[in-house]
Amino acid sequence: MNICFIGNCGHSAQAYRVLKTRNDIKMCGFAPSCLREGGGSSPFDGVPYFSDWREMLVKTKADMAVVAPIFGLNADIIIQCAEMGINVFAEKPIATTLKQLDAVKRAVKAHKIRLCAMHYLRYTPTFYRAAEMVRAGAVGEVRMLTAQKSYKWGRRPEWYSERELYGGTVPWIGIHAIDWIYAFTGKRFLSVTAESYGSPETAALCQFRLEDGVIASVNLDYLRPSSAKTHGDDRVRCVGTDGVIEVTEKEILLINDQGYQALAPTDAPELLTEFLSGGNAVSPDEIFHLTRAALCARDAADTGRKVMISRSDKPLS
Amino acid sequence: MNICFIGNCGHSAQAYRVLKTRNDIKMCGFAPSCLREGGGSSPFDGVPYFSDWREMLVKTKADMAVVAPIFGLNADIIIQCAEMGINVFAEKPIATTLKQLDAVKRAVKAHKIRLCAMHYLRYTPTFYRAAEMVRAGAVGEVRMLTAQKSYKWGRRPEWYSERELYGGTVPWIGIHAIDWIYAFTGKRFLSVTAESYGSPETAALCQFRLEDGVIASVNLDYLRPSSAKTHGDDRVRCVGTDGVIEVTEKEILLINDQGYQALAPTDAPELLTEFLSGGNAVSPDEIFHLTRAALCARDAADTGRKVMISRSDKPLS
Repeated sequence: MNICFIGNCGHSAQAYRVLKTRNDIKMCGFAPSCLREGGGSSPFDGVPYFSDWREMLVKTKADMAVVAPIFGLNADIIIQCAEMGINVFAEKPIATTLKQLDAVKRAVKAHKIRLCAMHYLRYTPTFYRAAEMVRAGAVGEVRMLTAQKSYKWGRRPEWYSERELYGGTVPWIGIHAIDWIYAFTGKRFLSVTAESYGSPETAALCQFRLEDGVIASVNLDYLRPSSAKTHGDDRVRCVGTDGVIEVTEKEILLINDQGYQALAPTDAPELLTEFLSGGNAVSPDEIFHLTRAALCARDAADTGRKVMISRSDKPLS
Repeated sequence: MNICFIGNCGHSAQAYRVLKTRNDIKMCGFAPSCLREGGGSSPFDGVPYFSDWREMLVKTKADMAVVAPIFGLNADIIIQCAEMGINVFAEKPIATTLKQLDAVKRAVKAHKIRLCAMHYLRYTPTFYRAAEMVRAGAVGEVRMLTAQKSYKWGRRPEWYSERELYGGTVPWIGIHAIDWIYAFTGKRFLSVTAESYGSPETAALCQFRLEDGVIASVNLDYLRPSSAKTHGDDRVRCVGTDGVIEVTEKEILLINDQGYQALAPTDAPELLTEFLSGGNAVSPDEIFHLTRAALCARDAADTGRKVMISRSDKPLS
């Protein structure tokens, strides 16, 4: 199988590390998604460099593209791949506007390509185990979930300040928390209100109503102090009729009628490996729905209005 | 000074414990606020019992009333006290509708009585110290605050199921978290969106916009498992430009450019003691504003709409 890389703005290096362990995969090319990324040689050892990604797609006869451009270019590149019948493993969010999202969805369905997006954090072992437990009833019926993403700002490219290129902090970071809400509850998002601070947003809050009356919130920030021991401070607290489960990157704590239990994480699937073997760890319909929820949340923060989330996606089919 | 008790539905026992240590105070009477509370003898040792609180106010020549009735009756009783020139130390929320709140405010101002409400949790030593630190700049400029109240349901009176008598979970419990947001930031509440589950609400989320772009959220629930070691699980996380502070009932953790610091709580004022000595630990204008924010949040959850919070209160005068 021929796999090429378009752009290197997100987590494509993670895909590279997986692919280089496999003999059945030929990494046939890398091309930047635009000049502002910085050109030069390939960041991927031994992978041939192309200055033009369109030319690369034609010349390398790629079967699959790992797409991780400047975020605002993601949708157009995925659509181009779809039109050429090339499967896609893309950085999230797969689109930065609702209009783009619908165009991606149409292209993926029309050209029947396979699509997966880098919703990697669902597979952080603690979160993966906790979601499995909650889906199996460990806290009874879920009533409320609160999720946190907190990151250091560190050094980030200048294009983070351009909304059209960056897309916003909720689609970029918040989508992971949105993904957890979905993975823990298995419920669809119905509506959202949100608030944010600054541009690019250094802090944001989102509040969702899901099916069956479940409510969920997300708090995001880029204000984690540089002295903090880890880059991120990820958390989920999930409250149900029969218990409460709390998750961080390190720990799972469950309180229910059996008292307190610290749970061990389990090995989670590796997203790209599963995708390559034909699995659908995160299905296209889930990706469409989660991306839509994230974009609606960003739009809710931008406009100050509640946004109803279209029921057009069928993640639970 | 003659002090009487009307109702025993909230935390009036806490006031009783303070008052019985003082020789300068005569606890002159206790009366229930309504028949459904249960009648019988006084729950306060040695305090004379009256079956009718209005009669008690006249007969005992009370200077101050500790008002803790079924929550929906609070406003009318405070207004009656005001009209008789009797100072009030009342359970929160001081009103369960915005109309009642405005009537209480008018009566308190017209009759120039002194008013304090039982916003006790601002004075939990850890939260009190942390709020002081934040107001002194420990995390720089505050951008976002998230607050949690989680309680066991345990046994609660039947009238919790009647909205007119109970008032709702956001005014009853959420007001403490709203109080923390105010105590930590010193900013006024401008608008709120909210979501809730059930009636009475067993879970609720509120999302506020405050002055200067500060954003804040509250998550509330009555779903703390009965096996949990404490009745409540109170938390604040306050994120600023120069650090993050996290607070529970036991601990304060500050992360800023000096690294991690566990801070010791300090003694906080006792609310009623301060009020008796003429102080204004929580001022009437703060109480009006915080109650308004809580009632607007409840109304936002009930209607599914964003509610703008009137600027008629002047908490920061």
